[in-house]
Amino acid sequence: METGHITGPELIIDREKCLGNIARMSAKTADNNLIFRPHFKTHQSLTVARWFRDCGVDKITVSSLRMAYYFASDGWDDILVGIAYNPREYSFYERLSEKCSLQATVSCPASAAILAGQCRFPLEVMIKIDTGYDRSGIRWDDTSSLRSCLDYLAGNSKIRVRGLMTHDGSSYGLNSKEAVAAQHKRSVNRIISCRDNSGRPEIMISTGDTPSASLADDFEGIDELRPGNFIFYDLMQYLIGACHFDEIAAALLCPVIDIRPGSDTVVIHGGAVHLSKDSILIDGKRVYGMLAGINSGGWYRLPQNIYLSSLSQEHGIIDCSGTDLGSTARVGDLIAVIPVHSCLSADCMGGYMSTDGEVAGHMKQPAHEIFSLL
Amino acid sequence: METGHITGPELIIDREKCLGNIARMSAKTADNNLIFRPHFKTHQSLTVARWFRDCGVDKITVSSLRMAYYFASDGWDDILVGIAYNPREYSFYERLSEKCSLQATVSCPASAAILAGQCRFPLEVMIKIDTGYDRSGIRWDDTSSLRSCLDYLAGNSKIRVRGLMTHDGSSYGLNSKEAVAAQHKRSVNRIISCRDNSGRPEIMISTGDTPSASLADDFEGIDELRPGNFIFYDLMQYLIGACHFDEIAAALLCPVIDIRPGSDTVVIHGGAVHLSKDSILIDGKRVYGMLAGINSGGWYRLPQNIYLSSLSQEHGIIDCSGTDLGSTARVGDLIAVIPVHSCLSADCMGGYMSTDGEVAGHMKQPAHEIFSLL
Repeated sequence: METGHITGPELIIDREKCLGNIARMSAKTADNNLIFRPHFKTHQSLTVARWFRDCGVDKITVSSLRMAYYFASDGWDDILVGIAYNPREYSFYERLSEKCSLQATVSCPASAAILAGQCRFPLEVMIKIDTGYDRSGIRWDDTSSLRSCLDYLAGNSKIRVRGLMTHDGSSYGLNSKEAVAAQHKRSVNRIISCRDNSGRPEIMISTGDTPSASLADDFEGIDELRPGNFIFYDLMQYLIGACHFDEIAAALLCPVIDIRPGSDTVVIHGGAVHLSKDSILIDGKRVYGMLAGINSGGWYRLPQNIYLSSLSQEHGIIDCSGTDLGSTARVGDLIAVIPVHSCLSADCMGGYMSTDGEVAGHMKQPAHEIFSLL
Repeated sequence: METGHITGPELIIDREKCLGNIARMSAKTADNNLIFRPHFKTHQSLTVARWFRDCGVDKITVSSLRMAYYFASDGWDDILVGIAYNPREYSFYERLSEKCSLQATVSCPASAAILAGQCRFPLEVMIKIDTGYDRSGIRWDDTSSLRSCLDYLAGNSKIRVRGLMTHDGSSYGLNSKEAVAAQHKRSVNRIISCRDNSGRPEIMISTGDTPSASLADDFEGIDELRPGNFIFYDLMQYLIGACHFDEIAAALLCPVIDIRPGSDTVVIHGGAVHLSKDSILIDGKRVYGMLAGINSGGWYRLPQNIYLSSLSQEHGIIDCSGTDLGSTARVGDLIAVIPVHSCLSADCMGGYMSTDGEVAGHMKQPAHEIFSLL
């Protein structure tokens, strides 16, 4: 790819790889008779969203109400807000519901009671189920809380419960197709048993995490899939085995700014404000990104694994030990870094450039006017 | 403070505490005959910058050239770019040098050679010295590299070497005034020995980290101080002992979105995209923020320590074990979180609201037009 115009840290996305990732996931959901409702929290970009639209996607998930406004401003009109309902945002939910088909999420009886008490407009609701990740939602075996939720929501005729949803992030800690598939199966069985005990056999089931969506083959009993990260993938997904290296569609290009003679490190302009502080342990060492080579087509897998070993606000430190990078790198060279977590790197950067030079926007560009977009 | 208008995660800054932090550091530098060149990478805000200006500050440090453009657009005209020179940004350095008094930083002989070869405009340069932090810069005992740098720079008559600078972040791992002061002394002695060996006794010395600037009393031999974090402080600085709790001037207000009956956790809307993934170990447990109480004046220290025990993209999990928070919190309540690292939280949020309702901007609001501001 052409890099002469790149001066500082720049998050590059590969449109062709993104389109491939969309096409594969889209085909997989179609083959399994699943509603495809990709999570747009990863890219947070109207440009990337249009790539999905061009592939026939018309239903989306977002991780905040602000994000729902952002995408609604570009005509998206079937939006699930995946984070649990926040009653302080009631009037913003109401306003958005007049513009698009909006689904809210409740995650506990208290939240259901408040929403049922407030809601004066037609609203579809998903109930979040915790199938073992232990983050948010009603535990799969807590039938009493689920029934309380359903009872509260049934008390408001404006509300229609659409289904049960889970995001079982436990899969992020695994590293084989078999382990992810087994974890997925356990999670699916739990949310199905949840519905079986709910007294509402007609409501649908939605699951989401990218490792399961990428690696599992058995989606029996599920109605909807909501993966997000797969649009870019990243180092974490690659290590889980959820993607091939050639499917990773985002890399941060960073200039070398400091060569340290006699040291095993090279310093780049590329730090926590570009990559986020998300990290992963590899062979007992904390890693903040992996280097890739740059060629005319984009980036490629280096023969040796070279990692970012530490980050501060603007600086990244490359551990070059056992490689010749310390002697071959030059100040001003560009280094491609595969982020540990592309969602957070995208959020930090607030924008992209594609390998062919197109600029793609991000929600964080106009963050302060999000609520006035409509 | 009034919170009725706060709907989602909002980074609140306390103007009075900020002004107190500025006044204390300003007085300390004046008492020690130091040039005060605060680092604006923490707040990245024209509003907060004006608070500094109102206190008589007219020299600043920034951590990227983009940030230099941002502040220059509001009339700041004595700016040190603290990150090492990136030759890809040459023309942007040149353009900015026509608008303000600009200082660049070089961190290795290679960087000095490139800058000396490129520079066709008058430019002051600082040389970065590594006094033990092992991140970037010439090692304090590497006289040969320092002299190479000076020789390269002397070969370009447009360049004037202003001095040597260090940022010794080792102090961030300490937790007492004595330890920080001893570390500071060692760092200062090292950079002074560096100058002694440079053959350039007239050049100045600049040091920077907030723990040392806050806790050390002996600044003998230093000419300039560049702390940044002290404007807000945060949980990390509080645990180091660099500030009192009442000096922490930034907190993230987050709504409770999920009460988990029978669990020791409460879920807030407030995650990695608001606080960053920066964390700290307390009693062997990883912590992503500490809760504070909210009152009419702002926030206050709770009688019990309650921490955020995990973060995902938008969710924060509060560990309520041993407290009554799990039974007293209500969905929709606001929780104040003291960030582990206020610089990164500010960068994630891209804007502030003050305790008295004023909105303060941040560089990341107009990030994509930074270079067209001038």
